[in-house]
Amino acid sequence: MTDAYARLKRRFARIATLGEAQAVLHWDAAAMMPPGGAAARGEQLAALAGLGHELLTAPAVADDLAAAEAAGAWDAANLALMRRAHARAAALPTALVEASARANSACETVWRGAKAGSDFALVRPALEEVVRLQRETARALSAALGLAPYDALMEGYQRGVRAAEVEPVFAAYEAFLRDALPRAEAIQAAKPAPVAPRGPFPVAAQRALCRRLSERIGLDYAHARLDESLHPFCGGTPSDIRITTFYSEEGFEKSLLGVLHETGHALYERGLPGAVPGGAWARQPVGESAGMAAHESQSLIIEMQACRSDAFLAFLGGELHRAFGGDAQPYGAANLGRLWRRVGRGFIRVDADELTYPAHVILRFRLERAMIEGALEVADLPGAWNEGFSGLLGIAPPDDARGCLQDIHWHDGAFGYFPSYTLGAMAAAQLMRAARRDIPALDGEMARGELLPLVAWLRERVHAQGARLGFQDLLRHATGKPLDPGDFVEHVTARYLVG
Amino acid sequence: MTDAYARLKRRFARIATLGEAQAVLHWDAAAMMPPGGAAARGEQLAALAGLGHELLTAPAVADDLAAAEAAGAWDAANLALMRRAHARAAALPTALVEASARANSACETVWRGAKAGSDFALVRPALEEVVRLQRETARALSAALGLAPYDALMEGYQRGVRAAEVEPVFAAYEAFLRDALPRAEAIQAAKPAPVAPRGPFPVAAQRALCRRLSERIGLDYAHARLDESLHPFCGGTPSDIRITTFYSEEGFEKSLLGVLHETGHALYERGLPGAVPGGAWARQPVGESAGMAAHESQSLIIEMQACRSDAFLAFLGGELHRAFGGDAQPYGAANLGRLWRRVGRGFIRVDADELTYPAHVILRFRLERAMIEGALEVADLPGAWNEGFSGLLGIAPPDDARGCLQDIHWHDGAFGYFPSYTLGAMAAAQLMRAARRDIPALDGEMARGELLPLVAWLRERVHAQGARLGFQDLLRHATGKPLDPGDFVEHVTARYLVG
Repeated sequence: MTDAYARLKRRFARIATLGEAQAVLHWDAAAMMPPGGAAARGEQLAALAGLGHELLTAPAVADDLAAAEAAGAWDAANLALMRRAHARAAALPTALVEASARANSACETVWRGAKAGSDFALVRPALEEVVRLQRETARALSAALGLAPYDALMEGYQRGVRAAEVEPVFAAYEAFLRDALPRAEAIQAAKPAPVAPRGPFPVAAQRALCRRLSERIGLDYAHARLDESLHPFCGGTPSDIRITTFYSEEGFEKSLLGVLHETGHALYERGLPGAVPGGAWARQPVGESAGMAAHESQSLIIEMQACRSDAFLAFLGGELHRAFGGDAQPYGAANLGRLWRRVGRGFIRVDADELTYPAHVILRFRLERAMIEGALEVADLPGAWNEGFSGLLGIAPPDDARGCLQDIHWHDGAFGYFPSYTLGAMAAAQLMRAARRDIPALDGEMARGELLPLVAWLRERVHAQGARLGFQDLLRHATGKPLDPGDFVEHVTARYLVG
Repeated sequence: MTDAYARLKRRFARIATLGEAQAVLHWDAAAMMPPGGAAARGEQLAALAGLGHELLTAPAVADDLAAAEAAGAWDAANLALMRRAHARAAALPTALVEASARANSACETVWRGAKAGSDFALVRPALEEVVRLQRETARALSAALGLAPYDALMEGYQRGVRAAEVEPVFAAYEAFLRDALPRAEAIQAAKPAPVAPRGPFPVAAQRALCRRLSERIGLDYAHARLDESLHPFCGGTPSDIRITTFYSEEGFEKSLLGVLHETGHALYERGLPGAVPGGAWARQPVGESAGMAAHESQSLIIEMQACRSDAFLAFLGGELHRAFGGDAQPYGAANLGRLWRRVGRGFIRVDADELTYPAHVILRFRLERAMIEGALEVADLPGAWNEGFSGLLGIAPPDDARGCLQDIHWHDGAFGYFPSYTLGAMAAAQLMRAARRDIPALDGEMARGELLPLVAWLRERVHAQGARLGFQDLLRHATGKPLDPGDFVEHVTARYLVG
């Protein structure tokens, strides 16, 4: 190991440590902080981000990166990730970063009112400024990294996959869905209507159930907490995971499935090379996750692939009935399947079912790419949205609140993130298929509520790889092939298109 | 305002912002963090402390401090505090700071076992190393600041009071106590024995009561939280105070009086000039508290002076009976007074009553001063402790666990802190006397559970002064005289020596 590389490892560990502090402060802001602390918290987070950026772009870093040499695949990958992080940070002038932060924050504030009043005109000027600065950011990153502008943004969320690879995958799914959705609706209509369990469902019982099931799946509460926040998430640090959910006495479906989803994220973080205390990759770039699509694959393989499977629902029904009592019939596996795997055409992405969710993402991917490439102006966004949505799902949003105003992402400056949701869902199906092949007893284990064999397989094939591999290479390593949307199509066909 | 001073204000604001992040992470570690997060949290806190130290000792700071000019009393005080903070930080070589941190941490770990086994020999070598480094630290600070070595350490906790002023105050109290303690014991013995309220006391009811009473006293929960930790404390930031307590179903005395104590600390923080968002002194040294003795005066004036007064107990008894039900008799003001104002000779400082608590502090002050000045070696500490303790309270500790091993302070490298407890108690009595003089209706208000007039008086006289004045000058400003232990003697005489 050269001196320069050793210095870089120390510097990146320090940057990661600041990142850990930010993660805890973010969690606290969402789950604990009294409202009066918000303004000061914003400044605390900004100060830590600023110091991290200074450490990453200090003049000594470029010299060390030029001089450093690393032997072995892991150190080489680590050094490459350092170079990439530095190149991204150095490519953006401070004035542009600050202008973006201000524009994003201003737009997000206006957007809340615009969404509430379904008033696109209200947010349009602020969103135009956000898009103008995102285009400038994309151009700067494009020049520095040698990527297309949209790819340069997307790579900030997920390395190792390009828009040119995503577009045909999405086009094929669009074609599949055109035929599959009416068939799935017809098959569903021919089945008995699901029976909803009768509430109320006490929050204390839900909380205990969520904790017990997440623990059973493999979350170690010596290194984790489960709390509450308005928008559920998985945060914290590798040795101290913080997952959150939101309880309502009227139903347990959202809180429970949400916790199982966040547990998938949490297990990934806990299984990363960076989570080994004092390990070689603790607080090093290569010890981190492979990106947002990889992360979403880990939450969805737990929630969608495993926990909503026929096998696991047979186990889960008994647990639910024990927790909430009352009539046993709604807790039968077949009824739970009909309840929690309903398909339908809706306007809201976060309420969408597994089959139609990709349509919501495909629309956003095409529109945001067109905006970044200059082929679509913000003024034309509502029209393009409504036209695209009707083309994909055959229904037209009645207003912009249920159309292009529904998501925070663009209004907060996040362009290039949306594909991660569907890439993650497709990767989850592909990984599950490979796991079933490697572990013949998998469904039998799941029927007994046992997910540990699946998690152990993911540990080895995905978690333990850290950020060594980009998205496509990670899938190649874990399943023997790059992203193959056929596995997802096969999964939804078996689940929704068999009468 | 000179450019140099403006630059310093920005730099100190950044340092304070890092301090806020550390405060939230400290609170989280005590109140929320799962055990598996401890090691990483230590590194997060060390990284933030290290960055703060780098910002404070960067070469540009000395130049700016030399060039800066400040007009007006507040800016002048702010600049003087910046110079003092820089001088303290610059006086200590990094190697010494790091050696101290390591020695303190190592000694604290060994101390836990030594205390559990009452085995002083076990911790002696580690404590000798701590003391050696504290002597070196004191010498370095002494040379840089022109203070006696012990004063230089004490000033790190409380500015504006010297050991030479403390010693006669403590000697006079020792003389007073020799006669007062047996008299107080005789008077107490002649009174009816107190009746303890019958439990169990549900934790949920205690929690609600603690919150309601702290709110009534003036704590605004839009800027605060109340949580639980093993060792109660007041932490967080000026706009986001975090107080903690510890509940037991067997009794509510400790949790309730603890919360009232921490509320006193919290009200001080909330009333500081630094707590005004966007105000001139937000995140500036002069906007902070005046020090630990000043802080303790604010917790003790609420807990000891106000809440344990006859007047407030008359109100509090009704609240307690409403909260817990059962027999009303134990909740009468006279009985609560006999319960919560019992005097006695005990070995443990944190369990001591108001009258004898100063004896515990006087012993520690003398011993730690002698250790820093080289007049007492660690090897002779247990003997010196037992001799001093017998001389002050007439009883001899049966073992070192109940003697010189009981407190964490020295074993964690905190020398010069102990006097703050009794300086604070004495200042609280002095402030209460002045408040009663200025607000004739004070006891009538307290009997109705109304502490806001007292808090408003403290806001103006103490809180709003920030760190502009040191301990003695703050008392002069608030009460018209420097520390006058006669007010404390008068207070304990009225409370414990009237038959």
